[in-house]
Amino acid sequence: MEFKIDRDLISQIEQYVAENREKELQNLLEDVHYADIAEIMDELNSSEAIYIFHILDSEKTAEILLELDEEVREKILKELSPKEIAVELDELSTDDAADVIGELPQDKKEEVISEILDVEHAKDIVDLLRYDEDTAGGLMGKELVKVNENWNVLTCVKEMREQAVNVQRVHSIYVVDDENRLKGRLSLKDLLTTSTKTPISEVYISKVDFVKVNTPDVEVARIMQRYDLEAIPVVDELGRLVGRITIDDIVDVIKEEADKDYQLAAGISQDVEADDSIIELTRARLPWLVLALLGGFVTVKVMGLFDGAMKEHGELFFFTPLIAAMAGNVGVQSSAIIVQGLANNTLSGSLWQRLIKEVSLSLLNSTILAIILIIGGHFLLGVSYDVGLTISISLISVIVIASLIGTFVPILLNKGGIDPALATGPFITTSNDICGILIYFSIAKVVLGF
Amino acid sequence: MEFKIDRDLISQIEQYVAENREKELQNLLEDVHYADIAEIMDELNSSEAIYIFHILDSEKTAEILLELDEEVREKILKELSPKEIAVELDELSTDDAADVIGELPQDKKEEVISEILDVEHAKDIVDLLRYDEDTAGGLMGKELVKVNENWNVLTCVKEMREQAVNVQRVHSIYVVDDENRLKGRLSLKDLLTTSTKTPISEVYISKVDFVKVNTPDVEVARIMQRYDLEAIPVVDELGRLVGRITIDDIVDVIKEEADKDYQLAAGISQDVEADDSIIELTRARLPWLVLALLGGFVTVKVMGLFDGAMKEHGELFFFTPLIAAMAGNVGVQSSAIIVQGLANNTLSGSLWQRLIKEVSLSLLNSTILAIILIIGGHFLLGVSYDVGLTISISLISVIVIASLIGTFVPILLNKGGIDPALATGPFITTSNDICGILIYFSIAKVVLGF
Repeated sequence: MEFKIDRDLISQIEQYVAENREKELQNLLEDVHYADIAEIMDELNSSEAIYIFHILDSEKTAEILLELDEEVREKILKELSPKEIAVELDELSTDDAADVIGELPQDKKEEVISEILDVEHAKDIVDLLRYDEDTAGGLMGKELVKVNENWNVLTCVKEMREQAVNVQRVHSIYVVDDENRLKGRLSLKDLLTTSTKTPISEVYISKVDFVKVNTPDVEVARIMQRYDLEAIPVVDELGRLVGRITIDDIVDVIKEEADKDYQLAAGISQDVEADDSIIELTRARLPWLVLALLGGFVTVKVMGLFDGAMKEHGELFFFTPLIAAMAGNVGVQSSAIIVQGLANNTLSGSLWQRLIKEVSLSLLNSTILAIILIIGGHFLLGVSYDVGLTISISLISVIVIASLIGTFVPILLNKGGIDPALATGPFITTSNDICGILIYFSIAKVVLGF
Repeated sequence: MEFKIDRDLISQIEQYVAENREKELQNLLEDVHYADIAEIMDELNSSEAIYIFHILDSEKTAEILLELDEEVREKILKELSPKEIAVELDELSTDDAADVIGELPQDKKEEVISEILDVEHAKDIVDLLRYDEDTAGGLMGKELVKVNENWNVLTCVKEMREQAVNVQRVHSIYVVDDENRLKGRLSLKDLLTTSTKTPISEVYISKVDFVKVNTPDVEVARIMQRYDLEAIPVVDELGRLVGRITIDDIVDVIKEEADKDYQLAAGISQDVEADDSIIELTRARLPWLVLALLGGFVTVKVMGLFDGAMKEHGELFFFTPLIAAMAGNVGVQSSAIIVQGLANNTLSGSLWQRLIKEVSLSLLNSTILAIILIIGGHFLLGVSYDVGLTISISLISVIVIASLIGTFVPILLNKGGIDPALATGPFITTSNDICGILIYFSIAKVVLGF
């Protein structure tokens, strides 16, 4: 059922554009979904993309605008006059329109707003621009269906028919008092199945989940997921209904949050994509590599302290990457589980219980690994038993400590109000490299005496 | 607005249970959301949880059952008779009921189904049990509102009122022909704003997105996200409408998929949580650690080949963890970006373009790092310039190769039909450790001659 975008299609479109065959292009794109057209436009050069944009009608181009890559959108918005942009915004819901306007330079912003024909729509958009984009206010739209608690079902249905014209999807009907304060909700199902004379005050459900305009977006996502909500009303400081957030906006928040955690774990500090420029990618990646390099300097220094071992027990130095790798891997495993537990709110029990569990787990794992190391080290690498034993004892200590660092650093960061995902990735591997090598040589020094 | 679950509340509930104060417990939990009660029950021991379960009515307990941790649910289901379970299932939507039944042992499954009072409901559930849980069939529910293309709006509204009683949320009204084949859809908004005499055939939208019963769940998620759908109909091989999938089920798929990628990148091979048992956690973590250990053996062997350097250039060995760490970090960065690009379908351009870009990016990054290394190495670590230069040349080569491995291994895995996320984490770091150290000493041998 899905539309296929391949090289052939792109070439054909490029040719049509080059030959200025407007009619054929319109026919070709007529039944294509706006998300697919946006993907096609992302592949074209900007003058071709703008050509396509101009031959389609604004109902479609408005939605395409939303789906484009940010850079392509920026280019197209630059080519459009304030009036042309205003026409696009008239077609969009208030929250989407506010997102687009938010990307414009300040002076163009005002010109565009003044060109929007529907004054109510413009007022709603301006209102939304006030809120921080990471809050409920920044996510919400103004399109909602609300009824007064003093009406009856008949008035309600009549009013709703009018309001529904401006609302793309009716999720819930909110009930407010004369001061526009949120009192409860009415389900569409109730409305479909109740007699028309019933007063609203008798049928509405007074228990309603809501969020405030300044609730953080990830908190909104958590609440909507936890309570299985498809839409949630947003109220201001005085409890007045000012907007609603729908689940599709939340899907994006969830996806972004998960992607961000993943990128932090991989040592990428900004939201970048494979297709971003080399400069952007470097800016996201290089800081972590510099951190790792400086960490590497410390490991060099640490090993320098033990260079007395080189003469008699040079093979100890062959094992440093192994020790560092094990410490790094164990640390990342531990921290990833904690970061996910914190994100999904599934961590239970006290810190003390967690400590005991983590120590037991890492003792179990490291003992198994130590046995493999002693046997494998002897038969595969020809390491003497005393050196093998030294390395094994070190391995167990290093793993236990790395797992404790991996467990408690994210918990502490989280308590301090810092994103615990920062603790995964290069941060954990680098600090575990240093600790691991220090512990390893210290134990070796005690056991082998050099 | 959110209900707070703290130690005090849990203690109070435990006390009420111990003193058998049913009435007080019911009052306390009356207005509490089922998701919150489920979280409370996860914290209680199993006899307390079962006590709570028995004093609440089945409308609430059915929803609680769904929200419980899998182990807690398993314990409670074990305590309930087939008849009691059937009462719960009667309250649940077909897809949720099928999920619960799916967790029962085979013989209990059949007993439970035979006890379900609503025969239609039971038939729907049995039908759903046929599908693999990772497909559209496994995600879909049977609750939907459908109308015949030959009806008019009035009949439609009448029929819908009846059907809506069984449907929790009306997303879309599907239009079918006499053979139940999906023809199109009708929006609630259209229905609210169209005259009652209009024939359905005149108002329905024939373009409708749908998936087949055997479409994989991640593909369903991708389509629903891409096309901003809140519900999608599911058809069988003959195009007959058999169910619908709603966005809230898709939120779970997206979340799970992101969590899985994250865990793979962190070297955790199964879906585990911090609160799982030590055995489960070991099973998910130990295999990757063994892999890393064996990779470590190879690095030991590789360094053994170059032990001639120890006498004159012992400091070279101090840098092996640094080289390994840089190779590992660069590799994970590169692969994480590719894995996300593949998951979000945002990779464009040819392999050749990607190769050029990745080489340029890593040359830029590694040159900056090499300069830091030469200067820092000399002033901070007292390394001579010729050794510093050797290490820097190695660092640049190692980073370029690590970034190529990190970029192309996931792309190749993906082409071979293997989850590219496997290539992140321990797999990449281990292979990059080995390659990195081999390259490092080979270059050192050529430059310094030992």
